[in-house]
Amino acid sequence: MRVPILARSLRQISRQMADGTLRSRDLVEASLARHDPALNAYVTYTPDLARKQAAAADAAFACGSLLGGLQGVPVSFKDLYGVAGLPTFAGTPRALPEVWTRDAAMVQTLRHQLGVIVGKTNSVEFAFGGLGTSRHHPVPWNPADRATHRAPGGSSSGAGVSVVEGTALVAFGTDTGGSVRIPASLTGCFGLKTTLGRWSTSGIVPLSPSFDTPGILTRSADDAAFAFEQLDPGRVPDLDPNTPLRIGVAEPFFWAGTDPGIAERLHEALRLVEVSGARLTDQTLPGCDEVYRIYHQGGIVSAELYAFLRPSLPDWLETLDPRVRRRMDDGRALEAWEYLRRKARYAELGAAAAQVLTGYDAIISPTVPIAPPPVAILDDPDTYSRLNLAMLRNTCVVSFLGLCAVNIPAGLDAQGLPVGLQLIGAPHTEPRLLAVARHIEAILAKADVWHPHPQNR
Amino acid sequence: MRVPILARSLRQISRQMADGTLRSRDLVEASLARHDPALNAYVTYTPDLARKQAAAADAAFACGSLLGGLQGVPVSFKDLYGVAGLPTFAGTPRALPEVWTRDAAMVQTLRHQLGVIVGKTNSVEFAFGGLGTSRHHPVPWNPADRATHRAPGGSSSGAGVSVVEGTALVAFGTDTGGSVRIPASLTGCFGLKTTLGRWSTSGIVPLSPSFDTPGILTRSADDAAFAFEQLDPGRVPDLDPNTPLRIGVAEPFFWAGTDPGIAERLHEALRLVEVSGARLTDQTLPGCDEVYRIYHQGGIVSAELYAFLRPSLPDWLETLDPRVRRRMDDGRALEAWEYLRRKARYAELGAAAAQVLTGYDAIISPTVPIAPPPVAILDDPDTYSRLNLAMLRNTCVVSFLGLCAVNIPAGLDAQGLPVGLQLIGAPHTEPRLLAVARHIEAILAKADVWHPHPQNR
Repeated sequence: MRVPILARSLRQISRQMADGTLRSRDLVEASLARHDPALNAYVTYTPDLARKQAAAADAAFACGSLLGGLQGVPVSFKDLYGVAGLPTFAGTPRALPEVWTRDAAMVQTLRHQLGVIVGKTNSVEFAFGGLGTSRHHPVPWNPADRATHRAPGGSSSGAGVSVVEGTALVAFGTDTGGSVRIPASLTGCFGLKTTLGRWSTSGIVPLSPSFDTPGILTRSADDAAFAFEQLDPGRVPDLDPNTPLRIGVAEPFFWAGTDPGIAERLHEALRLVEVSGARLTDQTLPGCDEVYRIYHQGGIVSAELYAFLRPSLPDWLETLDPRVRRRMDDGRALEAWEYLRRKARYAELGAAAAQVLTGYDAIISPTVPIAPPPVAILDDPDTYSRLNLAMLRNTCVVSFLGLCAVNIPAGLDAQGLPVGLQLIGAPHTEPRLLAVARHIEAILAKADVWHPHPQNR
Repeated sequence: MRVPILARSLRQISRQMADGTLRSRDLVEASLARHDPALNAYVTYTPDLARKQAAAADAAFACGSLLGGLQGVPVSFKDLYGVAGLPTFAGTPRALPEVWTRDAAMVQTLRHQLGVIVGKTNSVEFAFGGLGTSRHHPVPWNPADRATHRAPGGSSSGAGVSVVEGTALVAFGTDTGGSVRIPASLTGCFGLKTTLGRWSTSGIVPLSPSFDTPGILTRSADDAAFAFEQLDPGRVPDLDPNTPLRIGVAEPFFWAGTDPGIAERLHEALRLVEVSGARLTDQTLPGCDEVYRIYHQGGIVSAELYAFLRPSLPDWLETLDPRVRRRMDDGRALEAWEYLRRKARYAELGAAAAQVLTGYDAIISPTVPIAPPPVAILDDPDTYSRLNLAMLRNTCVVSFLGLCAVNIPAGLDAQGLPVGLQLIGAPHTEPRLLAVARHIEAILAKADVWHPHPQNR
């Protein structure tokens, strides 16, 4: 029986296009056929551009030009990335000035491989929010619940949706305090948050240059590992099957106040990992409490956003979503010396965390402690603030400590909504972290753990 | 007739030690014999250490171990550099904690070549001042005037003095807003301020991580070029004698309000350079007015100093020189967003300045617009503030624009005090800038322009 195109791994798809047994054109048509406008993944959907790029990729394949593993592969970009020829809204009501319509560095990388751009996905306004809401554009619908409109996670609010619906095999997002991992967890995707500085943010509308990182959302860890190798000089290694994994379980900070079924589901997953031969030990991630306490005082990200908007986009300040405005204003009065002191403290704590991580293949936590809430309850500002903080808690501390991390889908909570496992790695250990994630994903799959997007199988 | 050791070039001295015709021991004894305690170059003077290191250097020479061109060469370090075994005061009343008594990266580099450390030179408290004064340690005496105690220039206040008296052939200083170039100009030394990030500041007590750079003071441009090549992978090129130099004369910002004789002396030097075949054109350094206007509002450096002192050295805040305290307090209320906006603006203006500099071999200005004032008049806070600002004006804008620069001694002003020529180069053009400086120095020397330290001839 022939496996449907979109049920194949990205690695397989890429190989088949290279050997001529699959055309990008057919792949892209299959992807576009999966577009569900009601889910609102995209702010700018570009099927015509995608068809032209698929034709170009096929023409290159036909003359033996293999330009990279993402040649002919449909991808989406969060609408913070500049893409030549397309507007950038960055979640705001109006297109940003022309400087933000030049190809971002990551877009250039993708274009050099003749990747196929299916569109620009919705983003929280200036990426400042973990729930995925917007006052200016339709809020993407989390496909995990077709009955109730639930938060898709943010700020890369359309990215996970584009992967789950099937229009993109790789969704480029950005992650400052969790903006790749949170939508990945809430929609049931794999998500990679890279180490600060590893991938260029050039041409991406900034939220916080101190912490902004590009990242990708994919259907699986192996898809992410394959895409990673096309975008990064790093190579994802094969794990030695005879060396047991050393896994730290990040007690207790990350597990407090989890919604029903989340901790249970993840402990079950951890049991499967342990049964497979891994060594699990409780390991506090040092510094996370203090980093979170400092974060609670607001400031660094807010100040950096305001420092960008005020001189560069003053008119956009006028139309800010009040929920974004409120968070940004929290940081406007922060003194420079205190800003610097906090950053220095984050760096100190991050160095200690990185040191502890050298003893582990990964430290594991819930990616998000709460279930995706219904969008309707987020109109209340206090509810929004409370849930936004909860949404970001487990991911932002990892960002502020300067680490890298992934989200692995790990089944469903008590309400039947996606649960995600966060694997935390030392700075610049993405290749090994992806290898470990792929291994754990395989263990969960063997145990027939719920797969978040069965339609892709 | 035999040329006295200290009248030889550093290049010659190094070669003679390598070929066995000069011993480090004799060189170092000649240097130590020149120590004049009344000049107060050093806060920690280490002749015994120097003799031991000279013996070690000679022992290595004797067994054919040539470890670098500074092997056996007496050098001084500004008392912000950590040097294992010696205290660091950083211009404060008490030795700093143990962490600041570990070798700074530049000290390590010197040690690996078996350089000889003659001592740690006086510094303005936490390097925050351009005049070279102190409330806690004797203010070094500017050797250019033996009758009146005049400002030695700061913040590397002992560095120039150590070179002029002859105890150090290379004095390591730091330059945030002019702290190498100003003392070089005021004492009549050659001075190199490196591009931010080119040389490591690790192990140096910070003033402003955004702008702190290591630098060196030497007797001549050729000594600096030689030392540079021992400390940096860059190679100082030979200039093509058939290609005329392209020199921009930085009108009008840098020439306003110069003390009598300074502009005249420098225009005379520029005439000699032009007669030698160089092409001189007036060239405004773009951005300098705006950078200086922002600097006048205070802030970035002050905020960064406070952000360091408050968590790391709270007790040292209590004993700050009121003149340092006043400047630091100016920046304590600066908001983080405004701090970031200013830094971003500096970077924008710096990129424009670097672009203009690509059309020139150097842009030339007075290093310091005023003569070294008598130390006695600096007790008055308003006089101090006014002269400190004037002292820093021409150097700080170069720092904030992210450029590199040198000071070339260029004769005497109307009072018979040293005048310095600032050569400004694009970021990371130190090798070529040193070649141009050496060329200009030779032109001035041929015309028998006053040599600032005739005792070294």
